[in-house]
Amino acid sequence: MSTSASAEAIAQIAKAAFETSQLVNSADRTRALHEIRKELEANKVSILRANGEDMTNAEAEAVAGRLSSSLVNRLDLRTGEKWDTMLQGVTDIAALQDPTGVVSYARELHNDLELYRVSCPIGVLLVIFEARPEVIVNIAALALKSGNAAILKGGKESARTTAELTRTIQTALARTALPGTFIQTVETRAEVAALLAQDRYIDLVIPRGSNELDSVMGHADGLCTIYLDESADRDKARRLVVDAKTDYPAGCNAVETLLVHESLLQTIWLDVANALLAANVKLLCDEPTIAALISPASHGGSPLTTTVIPKLTTHVSPATPKAYDTEHLSLTLAVRAVPSLAVAIAHINEHGSHHTDCIVTESAAAGSTFVRGVDSAGVFINASTRFADGFRYGFGAEVGISTGRIHARGPVGLEGLVTYKYVLRSKGEEGHIVGEFGRGPGKKQYTHQPIQRNELPF
Amino acid sequence: MSTSASAEAIAQIAKAAFETSQLVNSADRTRALHEIRKELEANKVSILRANGEDMTNAEAEAVAGRLSSSLVNRLDLRTGEKWDTMLQGVTDIAALQDPTGVVSYARELHNDLELYRVSCPIGVLLVIFEARPEVIVNIAALALKSGNAAILKGGKESARTTAELTRTIQTALARTALPGTFIQTVETRAEVAALLAQDRYIDLVIPRGSNELDSVMGHADGLCTIYLDESADRDKARRLVVDAKTDYPAGCNAVETLLVHESLLQTIWLDVANALLAANVKLLCDEPTIAALISPASHGGSPLTTTVIPKLTTHVSPATPKAYDTEHLSLTLAVRAVPSLAVAIAHINEHGSHHTDCIVTESAAAGSTFVRGVDSAGVFINASTRFADGFRYGFGAEVGISTGRIHARGPVGLEGLVTYKYVLRSKGEEGHIVGEFGRGPGKKQYTHQPIQRNELPF
Repeated sequence: MSTSASAEAIAQIAKAAFETSQLVNSADRTRALHEIRKELEANKVSILRANGEDMTNAEAEAVAGRLSSSLVNRLDLRTGEKWDTMLQGVTDIAALQDPTGVVSYARELHNDLELYRVSCPIGVLLVIFEARPEVIVNIAALALKSGNAAILKGGKESARTTAELTRTIQTALARTALPGTFIQTVETRAEVAALLAQDRYIDLVIPRGSNELDSVMGHADGLCTIYLDESADRDKARRLVVDAKTDYPAGCNAVETLLVHESLLQTIWLDVANALLAANVKLLCDEPTIAALISPASHGGSPLTTTVIPKLTTHVSPATPKAYDTEHLSLTLAVRAVPSLAVAIAHINEHGSHHTDCIVTESAAAGSTFVRGVDSAGVFINASTRFADGFRYGFGAEVGISTGRIHARGPVGLEGLVTYKYVLRSKGEEGHIVGEFGRGPGKKQYTHQPIQRNELPF
Repeated sequence: MSTSASAEAIAQIAKAAFETSQLVNSADRTRALHEIRKELEANKVSILRANGEDMTNAEAEAVAGRLSSSLVNRLDLRTGEKWDTMLQGVTDIAALQDPTGVVSYARELHNDLELYRVSCPIGVLLVIFEARPEVIVNIAALALKSGNAAILKGGKESARTTAELTRTIQTALARTALPGTFIQTVETRAEVAALLAQDRYIDLVIPRGSNELDSVMGHADGLCTIYLDESADRDKARRLVVDAKTDYPAGCNAVETLLVHESLLQTIWLDVANALLAANVKLLCDEPTIAALISPASHGGSPLTTTVIPKLTTHVSPATPKAYDTEHLSLTLAVRAVPSLAVAIAHINEHGSHHTDCIVTESAAAGSTFVRGVDSAGVFINASTRFADGFRYGFGAEVGISTGRIHARGPVGLEGLVTYKYVLRSKGEEGHIVGEFGRGPGKKQYTHQPIQRNELPF
């Protein structure tokens, strides 16, 4: 009861902050980002001290077996380039083009009656993410740049770091035209559940990597597939599959299923399997792909190397049907032979998660068919699925990756955080009314002439 | 049980039709529209005969008091220009630009690694609408043009007309590269409920004017407001308010609330009220606006005319708080005096439905503030709210009007029926893998150079 009351208060405060901010201009929002960077630099010691406390607790939890060591590593803001990268991110986002105020459709409907579709913030965002505390700064910067108020919920393991970062951001905002409550954070899962009920105030929920919340925005089940077309190049096949599987197996853009054209079973497939086994990837194979590994005919394919052959018993096993519907998120890959490009496309549309899928091919026609036929947010030709990422796409930053079909699809950057409104302005002597338009005599006609404009003229 | 089984079959067939159609090109889809028009012309007699039967039944229902006469009129496809308008709509939609295949973002990520964001159909649409049978043809044409398969559900009153129109469309499709099942219709509400559960196959639900289904896409609660700013022009105020209220009171873009700056109570408000009462509009007024009507001081405002004065007892009553939260859809208007533009904006954001709102003003600054501060799909300056319409906006046709905040907002035309996918193509000798990029020595860097292209180069 008290949780949901406080959730309503938080949501209401966020909405009020958003409405207050509507008349703050883009330059002031960008200035706020610079203030945040300055304040982060000034508070580096206290933030990293809080992070150290989170780390100490997390390491104890890891020793007790209640937390994975990879999660502990993701918590750490003190090692490597993480701190500098976080600061640079704020500066980079400040330098991006303002996504609001952009006119994407403009028509004269009649003399002195002008229609503009102009981009504007969505409103209040609720962003839920795990572990990595620097995400708070990243998302706060994206929200500010796009003019959206935000409520952020990080993992409980980073509670102290989150608190310090939030305090720092709000201190910086207090020096700007924006309300300090423009960015808020919440801590517990109970609060999130209560917030999700506040759809009167919250306009968009963005979960990052939390399976429970997939249904809200469809974030990124990543069941990505690579298809080796009959015209595939041997080296490309090997390089791409190994990169897509091993570069970061826990990523939602890692490959989970490999489809092999059956003409390649005694050739390229053996090469690819050899490289995957050498990288300690476990293969869940259908009957034709497993048979090819066990008794390779000598059709020009390199047989498996001697170091890899022992792994046939430890790393290769028959695939159950479930193997093709599983996001392994580890060094495991499901493999299936297919008789044609059409079957490959059908498999991907049925079993994939519409995230990112790749064809390895030397045929322009096969590439074109694949791109049109595969119904996913990303469809790649001869490039690793791991490229599916807002930074790599050139968005400067991303909020997350969406597998939802409408609005933001794929990596969500600033453009995914704006919507639009239609602005209709009459400059006519008498204003404009609909009753004057129509087919009869003396009626006005719509002109629908394009207007060349990228921003509102007033 | 059998209903939901058949719903699944219908949805599955639609998805299969969509997937088959993915490789059908735009020119073939446009040709299919011309075939539909031809087939409609060829079947005019049987379609209008079926419509006549629906009309006979509906008139009997109306006599028995079970159906409104306005609904009966909307059923009729035989009178006026309805038939010709319906045919012309097909031709007009065929002539529109293809909304698919349009590149909206293109970057070189590295030498020979090119990223394109290209528009594509959403998939399977479920469109639910009432009464007017010509909507079937309209929506079918929009779905075809945008490459989406569709399942359509019209009102049960038009069942015979719907059946004939569907048969006609499917006959026409049988002569094209598209499957006849690309457009299907269903009849009962039970089927719709079962279809709504088929989200594995159905990608977007578009309800038109059915309040029960608002939550699905947020279609058009239309609580539109006009605000008379202190600088409002007298004639514009009168013309716009009367048009927005009386041109088509049942429309979702009709005005439901009038906010009057308190400096206008003895002047422009009297003029506007006089015109509204003369048009038989019922006014639900707050205390200041009602007081001004009952004892107008002579500050230059025209007093109410003698014909209108008797209506003070029959057509004017005090507003309850609920009056400002009600979509009247009739000749009823809630009226409230406000002390400032800021209060008007706050009232609209709190009580409106984010559909379309208008300011009447001669001040450019007030117009600009209103446009930025009001959080609605349409924000108008000196133009009637009734302009909020896909045809009037120049979209050629509309599927409906959305008050949802993301994806399609406002009138939904062809652009609202497409989404996009990211296509990444490597032309490099070795394909492209992520592992080669990074900060270390010998690592590749992202270039993120814009590519000037409006369509895929392959």
